[in-house]
Amino acid sequence: MYRVDLNSDLGESFGNYTLGMDEEILKYVSSANIACGWHAGDAMVMEKTVALAKRYGTAIGAHPGFPDLMGFGRRNMAVTPAEAKAYVKYQLGALSAFAAAEGIRIAHVKPHGALYNMAAVDHALARAMCEAVYEVDPSIIFMGLANSEMIRAAEETGLRAASEVFADRAYNDDGTLVSRKLPGSVIKDEELAIGRVVRMVKEGSVESVNGKTIAIRADSVCVHGDNPKALEFVKRIRETLADEGIEIRSL
Amino acid sequence: MYRVDLNSDLGESFGNYTLGMDEEILKYVSSANIACGWHAGDAMVMEKTVALAKRYGTAIGAHPGFPDLMGFGRRNMAVTPAEAKAYVKYQLGALSAFAAAEGIRIAHVKPHGALYNMAAVDHALARAMCEAVYEVDPSIIFMGLANSEMIRAAEETGLRAASEVFADRAYNDDGTLVSRKLPGSVIKDEELAIGRVVRMVKEGSVESVNGKTIAIRADSVCVHGDNPKALEFVKRIRETLADEGIEIRSL
Amino acid sequence: MYRVDLNSDLGESFGNYTLGMDEEILKYVSSANIACGWHAGDAMVMEKTVALAKRYGTAIGAHPGFPDLMGFGRRNMAVTPAEAKAYVKYQLGALSAFAAAEGIRIAHVKPHGALYNMAAVDHALARAMCEAVYEVDPSIIFMGLANSEMIRAAEETGLRAASEVFADRAYNDDGTLVSRKLPGSVIKDEELAIGRVVRMVKEGSVESVNGKTIAIRADSVCVHGDNPKALEFVKRIRETLADEGIEIRSL
Amino acid sequence: MYRVDLNSDLGESFGNYTLGMDEEILKYVSSANIACGWHAGDAMVMEKTVALAKRYGTAIGAHPGFPDLMGFGRRNMAVTPAEAKAYVKYQLGALSAFAAAEGIRIAHVKPHGALYNMAAVDHALARAMCEAVYEVDPSIIFMGLANSEMIRAAEETGLRAASEVFADRAYNDDGTLVSRKLPGSVIKDEELAIGRVVRMVKEGSVESVNGKTIAIRADSVCVHGDNPKALEFVKRIRETLADEGIEIRSL
Repeated sequence: MYRVDLNSDLGESFGNYTLGMDEEILKYVSSANIACGWHAGDAMVMEKTVALAKRYGTAIGAHPGFPDLMGFGRRNMAVTPAEAKAYVKYQLGALSAFAAAEGIRIAHVKPHGALYNMAAVDHALARAMCEAVYEVDPSIIFMGLANSEMIRAAEETGLRAASEVFADRAYNDDGTLVSRKLPGSVIKDEELAIGRVVRMVKEGSVESVNGKTIAIRADSVCVHGDNPKALEFVKRIRETLADEGIEIRSL
Repeated sequence: MYRVDLNSDLGESFGNYTLGMDEEILKYVSSANIACGWHAGDAMVMEKTVALAKRYGTAIGAHPGFPDLMGFGRRNMAVTPAEAKAYVKYQLGALSAFAAAEGIRIAHVKPHGALYNMAAVDHALARAMCEAVYEVDPSIIFMGLANSEMIRAAEETGLRAASEVFADRAYNDDGTLVSRKLPGSVIKDEELAIGRVVRMVKEGSVESVNGKTIAIRADSVCVHGDNPKALEFVKRIRETLADEGIEIRSL
Repeated sequence: MYRVDLNSDLGESFGNYTLGMDEEILKYVSSANIACGWHAGDAMVMEKTVALAKRYGTAIGAHPGFPDLMGFGRRNMAVTPAEAKAYVKYQLGALSAFAAAEGIRIAHVKPHGALYNMAAVDHALARAMCEAVYEVDPSIIFMGLANSEMIRAAEETGLRAASEVFADRAYNDDGTLVSRKLPGSVIKDEELAIGRVVRMVKEGSVESVNGKTIAIRADSVCVHGDNPKALEFVKRIRETLADEGIEIRSL
Repeated sequence: MYRVDLNSDLGESFGNYTLGMDEEILKYVSSANIACGWHAGDAMVMEKTVALAKRYGTAIGAHPGFPDLMGFGRRNMAVTPAEAKAYVKYQLGALSAFAAAEGIRIAHVKPHGALYNMAAVDHALARAMCEAVYEVDPSIIFMGLANSEMIRAAEETGLRAASEVFADRAYNDDGTLVSRKLPGSVIKDEELAIGRVVRMVKEGSVESVNGKTIAIRADSVCVHGDNPKALEFVKRIRETLADEGIEIRSL
């Protein structure tokens, strides 16, 4: 029996600002990455999002980001590994209080935005974040980009690693993502995108941007839920996965 | 055998800004109230302060405050009880990650500054914060102003309450603090101040600003450690308490 | 010839968060109160909003608020008059750079949210903010609640004051707004609301919640533009004012 | 007659946090670069610092930085040129209000920390910041690292450029600073450091780290004032410059 996790970034509203269709998407994904108040989210939003995730039985994870609300955590910041380590602990801890209050546990940690992208290629940074998680709770899973430094660092550290794949992104021959700045980096044909996910899950491989078959592990597929079209895509990918005999289940 | 806790607010540095003589004062107090990154403190400072407290065997508590770094959490903010509840959970959780990483536990929560002062007289606010603590971990002690709404709310909620007293502050007949805006609110004679603490611990009473003997419970005495003179006072109060047969012990 | 200004709060988006229908509403109002990056808005949003206002020929004003993005500046904060003064200078100055870059000038300052509400009843606070404006540029108009301390403080300080009225709010006998917490504080009948504005402009009076005729000066009417329904109301009020021979013109 | 400006970064306190010996150093420098509330400083500190600078007749400049109080603006952030442009306008504007209130003008803009370092080698970033200044007020001087992209961008934009040199830093053959990560980057011998400044001012040259004589323009020398030793150095450099017939004068 094949299985895969569907994850989505949620809890990104802040104060008076509303973002995302959290309650809708929570019904369709198996894991929710919840913003922790630095790049997005606030304490009230976290409390509400954790309660919603519990209601729908969705597994929750901390989604720590840079201290850059203005840039939504999407801008690289030259933090040291020690800073990144402390930042991940802080945000993971903050979310854990809301989980404890609801009587549920944090299943995973997935870095957000620029922190994710930087850690994918910077072993020391990835390692520091994995150590943060390990020191706080070694049973938490570390979710990172498939084939990246995050996966290697998690395994080294002794954490269970979850490889994340993207349905709509092209891959290089070495299994890394084709930069968004390059042509062909985004796959716009939804059928093709979903077909790639099925292959990744069933065969553990994908066709690279150069036409080669490369190995890729797909523990979790990232989906978006911030607009009606994204929600439609999630429903379609769920249907296709079911038709293909792939169970959608949290990590 | 008499006993009392000595507590101090620590971990109030932020980024490039250093405040307090944390390592010095940690040797002399039994409980450290650690700022949680909102009114003061940051993730790096919290990590370091928790490690120092562990080294010196000092009990740690979360010291949540308003989201007002510019005002150091000392300005009243009209937050709702629901907001205060979420804010306390968030900050308690953030600190708990650093405690978990060090293998120690959070003993207590003591609100900071304006949040403390407001909760002392606002039952709904105090109650909301106590519920936050209870929902996250009912074994955590709630430290608040002796004779205030915080103590009542903690007991109602089912939390263990710790009554905090101030050596250098005058008390009204109803056991509340004389406002700092009034003459005679601060006791400048150190010997007198220390003598009052001894009486509070041994007899459970203090002389009010009007000369009456009033009941007061002294579980913990607040001391400062942000300047050399404050440090001297802490040493003196320790010596006198020892001479009086009062053990200094965390809650 | 009668005339009145229509003002609206704009530029309230922040980073990745979008709020309001700024470009739409700018076509219908004569004055834009632009958030200055503390309770809402950021530098990029301010730059864009000032450029839009210039394009549509809408007068601009600074809309300073509390340093409380999380609460959208709607929560009372116990700042000192000296702090409020410095905060208004800072935010007015920040906006003035974008105005200078576009070659236009700041016509007015209108405090936001809790800062507005507090200053309406706190003379010292209102006075401090007026002095801030006066010291920076005495030709700037201070917009505040009609009949409030803001108007008195502006006149005392030597600033030109603009009295703001609300179409959909009930007034007490003394000309102050009926608290939103009381029944009847909000006038839901749009025709009635618009009719009240017409009377305020033409007769300088309004019927109080107790049925008395009270004096009120209406230099500017506050309208909202954050949803399609609000936009419809703005169009209706414009039409009625035109039919009544009232010109809509900035201060 | 030779002349040079002495500049120092000031106004870096924030809320309850005090940093620097501003009032002392203001007596000895000719230009103060004042933090604008993003990486350091707040509205109250800016107001006070501008007033102090006026009292001592010290020229003032805006010292804009990244929105990173936690990192004191010292961490590179991947902002776009458009963002940097808006950030500089905002911060320059904010400071200008305090200057206007004191009846003085802003003489220059000098980017802070990581923003300075990035702009020194990134022409597009430097250009965007120069355009920000030019659009707000083309009479303001842009101070940047001698021989860097900041100087070229300022000249291109039509701003008057001021080349800043460092007494205690080694220079590469191309006139850029030797990275702090390399040995020999910091000159610890104070006499040697001061001698280098004299030569830079009088001869327009300095000996590079490789022993070559390279051209350098020294309009302003950066000095620190955050500790007593730094203050002593400033006094010594002043004396030596006077002895050498070099006038210390703002730009």
